[in-house]
Amino acid sequence: MNVLHALRPPDLLTILNISLGFAAILLICESQSADMIKAAIIIIILAAVADGLDGFVARKTGSGPLGANLDSLADLLSFGAAPAFLVVVAFRLPHHIWPAAIFFLVCGALRLARFNISSKSDQLFEGLPIPAAGMALSSSILLGRPDLTVSLMIVLALLMVSSIPYPKIRDIRVLSIFGLLVAATFLAVFFQSNQLYTAILLGALIIMYLLSPVVILRLQKGK
Amino acid sequence: MNVLHALRPPDLLTILNISLGFAAILLICESQSADMIKAAIIIIILAAVADGLDGFVARKTGSGPLGANLDSLADLLSFGAAPAFLVVVAFRLPHHIWPAAIFFLVCGALRLARFNISSKSDQLFEGLPIPAAGMALSSSILLGRPDLTVSLMIVLALLMVSSIPYPKIRDIRVLSIFGLLVAATFLAVFFQSNQLYTAILLGALIIMYLLSPVVILRLQKGK
Repeated sequence: MNVLHALRPPDLLTILNISLGFAAILLICESQSADMIKAAIIIIILAAVADGLDGFVARKTGSGPLGANLDSLADLLSFGAAPAFLVVVAFRLPHHIWPAAIFFLVCGALRLARFNISSKSDQLFEGLPIPAAGMALSSSILLGRPDLTVSLMIVLALLMVSSIPYPKIRDIRVLSIFGLLVAATFLAVFFQSNQLYTAILLGALIIMYLLSPVVILRLQKGK
Repeated sequence: MNVLHALRPPDLLTILNISLGFAAILLICESQSADMIKAAIIIIILAAVADGLDGFVARKTGSGPLGANLDSLADLLSFGAAPAFLVVVAFRLPHHIWPAAIFFLVCGALRLARFNISSKSDQLFEGLPIPAAGMALSSSILLGRPDLTVSLMIVLALLMVSSIPYPKIRDIRVLSIFGLLVAATFLAVFFQSNQLYTAILLGALIIMYLLSPVVILRLQKGK
Protein backbone atom coordinates (compact mmCIF):
# COMPACT_ATOMS: atom_id res chain seq x y z
CA MET A 1 0.00 0.00 0.00
CA ASN A 2 1.37 3.39 -0.98
CA VAL A 3 1.50 5.35 2.28
CA LEU A 4 1.32 8.75 0.55
CA HIS A 5 -1.92 7.77 -1.24
CA ALA A 6 -3.42 6.53 2.05
CA LEU A 7 -2.85 9.89 3.83
CA ARG A 8 -5.95 12.05 4.49
CA PRO A 9 -6.15 15.69 5.76
CA PRO A 10 -6.55 14.69 9.44
CA ASP A 11 -3.41 12.51 9.13
CA LEU A 12 -1.39 15.63 8.33
CA LEU A 13 -2.50 17.10 11.67
CA THR A 14 -1.45 13.83 13.35
CA ILE A 15 1.98 14.17 11.71
CA LEU A 16 2.14 17.75 13.05
CA ASN A 17 1.21 16.40 16.50
CA ILE A 18 4.03 13.79 16.57
CA SER A 19 6.54 16.28 15.11
CA LEU A 20 5.73 18.80 17.85
CA GLY A 21 6.03 16.10 20.53
CA PHE A 22 9.44 15.03 19.28
CA ALA A 23 10.62 18.65 18.85
CA ALA A 24 9.70 19.23 22.51
CA ILE A 25 11.92 16.27 23.55
CA LEU A 26 14.84 17.54 21.43
CA LEU A 27 14.52 21.10 22.75
CA ILE A 28 14.33 20.09 26.43
CA CYS A 29 17.47 17.99 26.11
CA GLU A 30 19.41 20.70 24.28
CA SER A 31 18.82 23.45 26.80
CA GLN A 32 17.54 22.50 30.21
CA SER A 33 16.88 26.14 31.17
CA ALA A 34 13.64 27.30 32.82
CA ASP A 35 12.65 29.17 29.65
CA MET A 36 13.10 26.08 27.50
CA ILE A 37 11.04 23.98 29.92
CA LYS A 38 8.22 26.53 29.56
CA ALA A 39 8.58 26.50 25.76
CA ALA A 40 8.39 22.68 25.80
CA ILE A 41 5.16 22.81 27.85
CA ILE A 42 3.66 25.18 25.26
CA ILE A 43 4.75 22.87 22.44
CA ILE A 44 3.08 19.88 24.14
CA ILE A 45 -0.13 21.95 24.52
CA LEU A 46 0.11 22.91 20.83
CA ALA A 47 0.44 19.18 20.01
CA ALA A 48 -2.81 18.67 21.97
CA VAL A 49 -4.45 21.42 19.88
CA ALA A 50 -3.29 19.62 16.69
CA ASP A 51 -4.69 16.37 18.15
CA GLY A 52 -8.05 18.04 18.89
CA LEU A 53 -8.23 19.60 15.40
CA ASP A 54 -7.32 16.22 13.91
CA GLY A 55 -10.35 14.61 15.57
CA PHE A 56 -12.55 17.54 14.49
CA VAL A 57 -11.40 17.35 10.84
CA ALA A 58 -11.71 13.54 10.86
CA ARG A 59 -15.37 13.81 11.91
CA LYS A 60 -16.00 16.32 9.07
CA THR A 61 -14.02 14.75 6.21
CA GLY A 62 -13.82 11.14 7.39
CA SER A 63 -10.60 9.50 8.50
CA GLY A 64 -8.38 7.46 6.18
CA PRO A 65 -7.22 3.86 6.71
CA LEU A 66 -4.14 4.94 8.68
CA GLY A 67 -6.06 7.39 10.92
CA ALA A 68 -6.68 5.56 14.19
CA ASN A 69 -3.32 3.76 14.35
CA LEU A 70 -1.28 6.83 13.44
CA ASP A 71 -3.18 8.84 16.03
CA SER A 72 -2.28 6.40 18.85
CA LEU A 73 1.39 6.45 17.91
CA ALA A 74 1.46 10.27 17.91
CA ASP A 75 -0.38 10.42 21.24
CA LEU A 76 2.09 8.04 22.91
CA LEU A 77 4.99 10.25 21.91
CA SER A 78 3.45 13.70 22.53
CA PHE A 79 1.42 12.99 25.69
CA GLY A 80 3.23 9.95 27.14
CA ALA A 81 6.96 10.15 26.40
CA ALA A 82 7.39 13.95 26.07
CA PRO A 83 5.65 14.96 29.36
CA ALA A 84 7.33 12.14 31.37
CA PHE A 85 10.71 13.13 29.90
CA LEU A 86 10.00 16.79 30.69
CA VAL A 87 9.30 15.97 34.34
CA VAL A 88 12.57 14.02 34.73
CA VAL A 89 14.63 16.80 33.11
CA ALA A 90 12.84 19.80 34.66
CA PHE A 91 13.28 18.52 38.21
CA ARG A 92 16.54 16.61 37.54
CA LEU A 93 14.90 13.60 39.16
CA PRO A 94 17.33 11.04 40.63
CA HIS A 95 17.53 7.55 39.08
CA HIS A 96 15.36 5.90 41.72
CA ILE A 97 12.41 8.09 40.67
CA TRP A 98 12.79 7.25 36.94
CA PRO A 99 10.56 4.15 37.29
CA ALA A 100 7.64 6.53 38.02
CA ALA A 101 8.19 8.19 34.61
CA ILE A 102 8.49 4.79 32.91
CA PHE A 103 5.29 3.68 34.70
CA PHE A 104 3.44 6.73 33.33
CA LEU A 105 4.60 5.91 29.79
CA VAL A 106 3.74 2.19 30.07
CA CYS A 107 0.25 2.96 31.45
CA GLY A 108 -0.24 5.43 28.59
CA ALA A 109 0.68 2.70 26.09
CA LEU A 110 -1.70 0.23 27.77
CA ARG A 111 -4.49 2.86 27.66
CA LEU A 112 -3.91 3.45 23.92
CA ALA A 113 -3.70 -0.29 23.12
CA ARG A 114 -6.96 -0.95 24.99
CA PHE A 115 -8.71 1.98 23.25
CA ASN A 116 -7.82 0.58 19.81
CA ILE A 117 -9.47 -2.78 20.46
CA SER A 118 -12.45 -1.90 22.66
CA SER A 119 -15.96 -1.10 21.52
CA LYS A 120 -16.45 2.66 21.44
CA SER A 121 -19.11 4.69 23.20
CA ASP A 122 -20.21 7.99 21.64
CA GLN A 123 -20.09 9.92 24.88
CA LEU A 124 -17.62 8.26 27.20
CA PHE A 125 -13.99 7.17 27.28
CA GLU A 126 -12.84 4.19 29.39
CA GLY A 127 -10.12 5.64 31.63
CA LEU A 128 -8.50 9.08 31.46
CA PRO A 129 -7.45 9.89 27.85
CA ILE A 130 -3.68 10.25 27.44
CA PRO A 131 -3.79 13.83 25.98
CA ALA A 132 -5.52 15.04 29.17
CA ALA A 133 -2.98 13.15 31.33
CA GLY A 134 -0.04 14.56 29.35
CA MET A 135 -1.32 18.14 29.57
CA ALA A 136 -2.12 17.87 33.28
CA LEU A 137 1.36 16.48 33.98
CA SER A 138 3.14 19.11 31.86
CA SER A 139 1.18 22.03 33.33
CA SER A 140 1.89 20.84 36.89
CA ILE A 141 5.61 21.48 36.31
CA LEU A 142 4.88 25.25 36.36
CA LEU A 143 4.05 24.94 40.07
CA GLY A 144 7.70 24.05 40.75
CA ARG A 145 6.89 21.24 43.20
CA PRO A 146 8.64 17.97 42.21
CA ASP A 147 6.94 15.92 44.98
CA LEU A 148 3.52 17.06 43.78
CA THR A 149 4.30 16.40 40.10
CA VAL A 150 5.73 12.91 40.75
CA SER A 151 2.67 11.97 42.86
CA LEU A 152 0.39 13.35 40.12
CA MET A 153 2.31 11.30 37.54
CA ILE A 154 1.45 8.06 39.37
CA VAL A 155 -2.20 9.08 39.92
CA LEU A 156 -2.63 10.04 36.24
CA ALA A 157 -1.03 6.75 35.15
CA LEU A 158 -3.50 4.76 37.29
CA LEU A 159 -6.46 6.86 36.03
CA MET A 160 -5.42 6.07 32.43
CA VAL A 161 -5.53 2.28 32.89
CA SER A 162 -8.62 2.44 35.14
CA SER A 163 -12.13 1.82 33.80
CA ILE A 164 -13.44 5.13 35.19
CA PRO A 165 -15.73 6.81 32.59
CA TYR A 166 -14.50 10.16 31.22
CA PRO A 167 -16.63 12.42 29.01
CA LYS A 168 -15.72 13.04 25.36
CA ILE A 169 -15.62 16.79 24.95
CA ARG A 170 -16.73 17.73 21.45
CA ASP A 171 -18.86 20.75 22.26
CA ILE A 172 -17.47 23.56 20.11
CA ARG A 173 -18.01 26.11 22.94
CA VAL A 174 -15.93 24.10 25.43
CA LEU A 175 -13.23 23.58 22.81
CA SER A 176 -13.20 27.32 22.02
CA ILE A 177 -12.72 28.24 25.69
CA PHE A 178 -9.85 25.77 25.86
CA GLY A 179 -8.36 27.22 22.65
CA LEU A 180 -8.53 30.77 24.07
CA LEU A 181 -6.81 29.62 27.28
CA VAL A 182 -4.05 27.97 25.29
CA ALA A 183 -3.56 31.16 23.27
CA ALA A 184 -3.48 33.18 26.53
CA THR A 185 -0.88 30.81 28.06
CA PHE A 186 1.17 31.09 24.90
CA LEU A 187 1.12 34.90 24.96
CA ALA A 188 1.74 35.04 28.72
CA VAL A 189 4.79 32.80 28.49
CA PHE A 190 6.01 34.64 25.41
CA PHE A 191 5.81 38.01 27.14
CA GLN A 192 6.90 36.54 30.50
CA SER A 193 3.91 38.00 32.32
CA ASN A 194 0.87 36.70 34.18
CA GLN A 195 1.89 33.15 33.42
CA LEU A 196 1.02 31.96 36.93
CA TYR A 197 -2.58 33.14 36.60
CA THR A 198 -2.94 31.55 33.20
CA ALA A 199 -1.37 28.33 34.49
CA ILE A 200 -3.86 28.33 37.38
CA LEU A 201 -6.78 28.82 34.94
CA LEU A 202 -5.52 26.02 32.71
CA GLY A 203 -4.91 23.84 35.77
CA ALA A 204 -8.44 24.49 37.08
CA LEU A 205 -9.89 23.42 33.73
CA ILE A 206 -7.85 20.21 33.79
CA ILE A 207 -8.78 19.44 37.42
CA MET A 208 -12.47 19.93 36.52
CA TYR A 209 -12.04 17.34 33.77
CA LEU A 210 -10.13 14.96 36.06
CA LEU A 211 -12.99 15.07 38.57
CA SER A 212 -15.82 14.93 35.99
CA PRO A 213 -16.38 11.14 36.44
CA VAL A 214 -17.81 11.85 39.90
CA VAL A 215 -20.69 13.73 38.21
CA ILE A 216 -21.06 11.08 35.48
CA LEU A 217 -21.21 8.22 37.99
CA ARG A 218 -23.82 10.10 40.06
CA LEU A 219 -25.94 10.73 36.97
CA GLN A 220 -25.64 7.06 35.97
CA LYS A 221 -26.71 5.98 39.47
CA GLY A 222 -29.69 8.34 39.34
CA LYS A 223 -30.99 6.74 36.13
CA MET B 1 -11.80 -3.89 30.10
CA ASN B 2 -9.38 -4.61 32.92
CA VAL B 3 -5.95 -4.03 31.40
CA LEU B 4 -4.16 -6.29 33.89
CA HIS B 5 -6.44 -9.23 33.01
CA ALA B 6 -5.83 -8.64 29.30
CA LEU B 7 -2.02 -8.87 29.65
CA ARG B 8 -0.33 -12.04 28.29
CA PRO B 9 3.32 -13.21 28.71
CA PRO B 10 4.49 -11.64 25.39
CA ASP B 11 2.99 -8.30 26.50
CA LEU B 12 5.39 -8.28 29.46
CA LEU B 13 8.30 -8.45 26.98
CA THR B 14 6.70 -5.57 25.05
CA ILE B 15 6.57 -3.56 28.28
CA LEU B 16 10.27 -4.38 28.82
CA ASN B 17 10.95 -3.21 25.25
CA ILE B 18 9.26 0.20 25.72
CA SER B 19 10.85 0.63 29.19
CA LEU B 20 14.33 0.02 27.75
CA GLY B 21 13.67 2.46 24.87
CA PHE B 22 12.57 5.19 27.27
CA ALA B 23 15.45 4.47 29.67
CA ALA B 24 17.85 4.94 26.72
CA ILE B 25 16.34 8.40 26.02
CA LEU B 26 16.60 9.41 29.70
CA LEU B 27 20.23 8.20 29.99
CA ILE B 28 21.42 9.93 26.80
CA CYS B 29 19.97 13.23 27.94
CA GLU B 30 21.44 12.98 31.43
CA SER B 31 25.02 12.35 30.38
CA GLN B 32 25.95 13.04 26.80
CA SER B 33 29.37 11.38 27.18
CA ALA B 34 30.77 8.91 24.64
CA ASP B 35 30.37 6.05 27.14
CA MET B 36 26.73 6.86 27.73
CA ILE B 37 26.07 7.02 23.96
CA LYS B 38 27.52 3.49 23.67
CA ALA B 39 25.43 2.30 26.63
CA ALA B 40 22.32 3.75 24.96
CA ILE B 41 23.10 1.88 21.72
CA ILE B 42 23.37 -1.37 23.72
CA ILE B 43 20.06 -0.63 25.47
CA ILE B 44 18.34 -0.08 22.10
CA ILE B 45 19.76 -3.41 20.87
CA LEU B 46 18.52 -5.09 24.08
CA ALA B 47 15.07 -3.60 23.37
CA ALA B 48 15.29 -5.26 19.93
CA VAL B 49 16.12 -8.58 21.63
CA ALA B 50 13.04 -8.16 23.89
CA ASP B 51 11.00 -7.36 20.75
CA GLY B 52 12.28 -10.52 19.01
CA LEU B 53 11.56 -12.70 22.06
CA ASP B 54 8.12 -11.12 22.32
CA GLY B 55 7.30 -12.28 18.77
CA PHE B 56 8.77 -15.73 19.52
CA VAL B 57 6.74 -16.16 22.74
CA ALA B 58 3.59 -14.82 21.04
CA ARG B 59 3.88 -17.52 18.35
CA LYS B 60 4.25 -20.19 21.07
CA THR B 61 1.66 -19.05 23.63
CA GLY B 62 -0.62 -16.95 21.45
CA SER B 63 -0.87 -13.17 21.76
CA GLY B 64 -3.50 -11.45 23.86
CA PRO B 65 -5.98 -8.78 22.70
CA LEU B 66 -3.56 -5.93 23.42
CA GLY B 67 -0.57 -7.61 21.69
CA ALA B 68 -0.35 -6.06 18.22
CA ASN B 69 -1.24 -2.51 19.28
CA LEU B 70 1.06 -2.49 22.29
CA ASP B 71 3.88 -3.84 20.14
CA SER B 72 3.58 -0.97 17.62
CA LEU B 73 3.62 1.62 20.38
CA ALA B 74 6.77 0.10 21.92
CA ASP B 75 8.49 -0.14 18.53
CA LEU B 76 7.82 3.53 17.75
CA LEU B 77 9.49 4.58 20.98
CA SER B 78 12.43 2.15 21.03
CA PHE B 79 13.32 2.04 17.32
CA GLY B 80 11.90 5.36 16.06
CA ALA B 81 12.19 8.02 18.76
CA ALA B 82 15.18 6.67 20.74
CA PRO B 83 17.59 6.13 17.78
CA ALA B 84 16.65 9.47 16.13
CA PHE B 85 17.13 11.24 19.47
CA LEU B 86 20.45 9.45 19.97
CA VAL B 87 21.73 10.67 16.58
CA VAL B 88 20.81 14.30 17.35
CA VAL B 89 22.48 14.19 20.78
CA ALA B 90 25.55 12.09 19.85
CA PHE B 91 26.56 14.40 17.00
CA ARG B 92 25.07 17.57 18.54
CA LEU B 93 23.27 18.15 15.25
CA PRO B 94 22.36 21.79 14.50
CA HIS B 95 18.67 22.79 14.37
CA HIS B 96 18.47 22.77 10.57
CA ILE B 97 19.24 19.01 10.57
CA TRP B 98 16.55 18.19 13.16
CA PRO B 99 13.87 17.80 10.44
CA ALA B 100 15.82 14.71 9.22
CA ALA B 101 15.36 13.11 12.66
CA ILE B 102 11.66 14.10 12.74
CA PHE B 103 11.30 12.67 9.19
CA PHE B 104 12.75 9.33 10.39
CA LEU B 105 10.28 9.20 13.28
CA VAL B 106 7.27 10.16 11.11
CA CYS B 107 8.17 7.55 8.47
CA GLY B 108 8.52 4.97 11.27
CA ALA B 109 5.03 5.87 12.52
CA LEU B 110 3.59 5.63 8.99
CA ARG B 111 5.27 2.21 8.55
CA LEU B 112 3.75 0.94 11.83
CA ALA B 113 0.28 2.35 11.07
CA ARG B 114 0.32 0.72 7.61
CA PHE B 115 1.46 -2.61 9.09
CA ASN B 116 -1.46 -2.69 11.53
CA ILE B 117 -4.09 -2.36 8.79
CA SER B 118 -2.58 -4.31 5.89
CA SER B 119 -3.04 -7.99 5.11
CA LYS B 120 -0.07 -9.95 6.40
CA SER B 121 2.18 -12.26 4.43
CA ASP B 122 3.83 -15.16 6.25
CA GLN B 123 7.23 -14.59 4.73
CA LEU B 124 7.52 -10.96 3.73
CA PHE B 125 7.21 -7.50 5.27
CA GLU B 126 6.12 -4.49 3.19
CA GLY B 127 8.95 -1.98 3.64
CA LEU B 128 11.90 -2.16 6.04
CA PRO B 129 10.70 -3.05 9.57
CA ILE B 130 11.31 -0.30 12.13
CA PRO B 131 13.43 -2.46 14.55
CA ALA B 132 15.93 -3.10 11.73
CA ALA B 133 15.96 0.61 10.81
CA GLY B 134 16.43 1.63 14.45
CA MET B 135 19.30 -0.81 15.02
CA ALA B 136 21.03 0.12 11.76
CA LEU B 137 20.79 3.82 12.63
CA SER B 138 22.00 3.34 16.21
CA SER B 139 24.94 1.11 15.21
CA SER B 140 26.06 3.59 12.54
CA ILE B 141 26.79 6.13 15.29
CA LEU B 142 29.79 3.99 16.36
CA LEU B 143 31.48 4.92 13.06
CA GLY B 144 31.66 8.55 14.25
CA ARG B 145 30.62 10.04 10.89
CA PRO B 146 27.64 12.44 11.29
CA ASP B 147 27.27 13.00 7.51
CA LEU B 148 27.03 9.26 6.93
CA THR B 149 24.56 8.69 9.79
CA VAL B 150 22.29 11.57 8.72
CA SER B 151 22.24 10.30 5.10
CA LEU B 152 21.51 6.79 6.37
CA MET B 153 18.69 8.17 8.51
CA ILE B 154 16.93 9.55 5.41
CA VAL B 155 17.53 6.36 3.37
CA LEU B 156 16.21 4.15 6.21
CA ALA B 157 13.14 6.41 6.58
CA LEU B 158 12.35 6.05 2.87
CA LEU B 159 12.93 2.27 2.97
CA MET B 160 10.44 2.00 5.85
CA VAL B 161 7.58 3.67 3.95
CA SER B 162 8.50 1.98 0.65
CA SER B 163 6.75 -1.16 -0.57
CA ILE B 164 10.03 -3.06 -1.00
CA PRO B 165 9.63 -6.67 0.28
CA TYR B 166 11.78 -7.60 3.31
CA PRO B 167 12.07 -11.17 4.63
CA LYS B 168 10.68 -12.13 8.04
CA ILE B 169 13.53 -13.77 9.91
CA ARG B 170 12.16 -16.46 12.20
CA ASP B 171 14.77 -19.13 11.64
CA ILE B 172 16.08 -20.02 15.08
CA ARG B 173 19.67 -20.40 13.74
CA VAL B 174 19.71 -16.88 12.27
CA LEU B 175 18.21 -15.50 15.47
CA SER B 176 20.83 -17.34 17.56
CA ILE B 177 23.71 -15.87 15.53
CA PHE B 178 22.19 -12.42 16.02
CA GLY B 179 21.81 -13.08 19.75
CA LEU B 180 25.45 -14.14 20.05
CA LEU B 181 26.58 -11.00 18.20
CA VAL B 182 24.51 -8.85 20.53
CA ALA B 183 26.09 -10.58 23.53
CA ALA B 184 29.55 -10.05 22.01
CA THR B 185 28.86 -6.34 21.42
CA PHE B 186 27.60 -6.04 24.95
CA LEU B 187 30.74 -7.65 26.41
CA ALA B 188 33.05 -5.71 24.08
CA VAL B 189 31.54 -2.36 25.06
CA PHE B 190 31.48 -3.38 28.70
CA PHE B 191 35.19 -4.25 28.68
CA GLN B 192 36.01 -1.39 26.28
CA SER B 193 37.78 -3.73 23.86
CA ASN B 194 37.31 -4.92 20.28
CA GLN B 195 34.14 -2.92 19.99
CA LEU B 196 35.02 -1.73 16.48
CA TYR B 197 35.25 -5.33 15.18
CA THR B 198 31.98 -6.28 16.83
CA ALA B 199 30.32 -3.13 15.48
CA ILE B 200 31.58 -4.03 11.98
CA LEU B 201 30.20 -7.59 12.34
CA LEU B 202 26.84 -6.28 13.56
CA GLY B 203 26.88 -3.66 10.77
CA ALA B 204 27.63 -6.30 8.13
CA LEU B 205 24.68 -8.37 9.32
CA ILE B 206 22.39 -5.34 9.15
CA ILE B 207 23.64 -4.34 5.67
CA MET B 208 22.99 -7.90 4.46
CA TYR B 209 19.41 -7.57 5.68
CA LEU B 210 19.02 -4.10 4.13
CA LEU B 211 20.10 -5.50 0.75
CA SER B 212 18.14 -8.77 1.00
CA PRO B 213 15.20 -7.48 -1.15
CA VAL B 214 17.51 -7.57 -4.20
CA VAL B 215 17.67 -11.37 -3.82
CA ILE B 216 13.93 -11.66 -3.08
CA LEU B 217 12.97 -9.59 -6.14
CA ARG B 218 15.30 -11.69 -8.36
CA LEU B 219 13.77 -14.91 -7.03
CA GLN B 220 10.24 -13.54 -7.59
CA LYS B 221 11.16 -12.56 -11.18
CA GLY B 222 12.57 -16.03 -11.79
CA LYS B 223 9.26 -17.66 -10.80
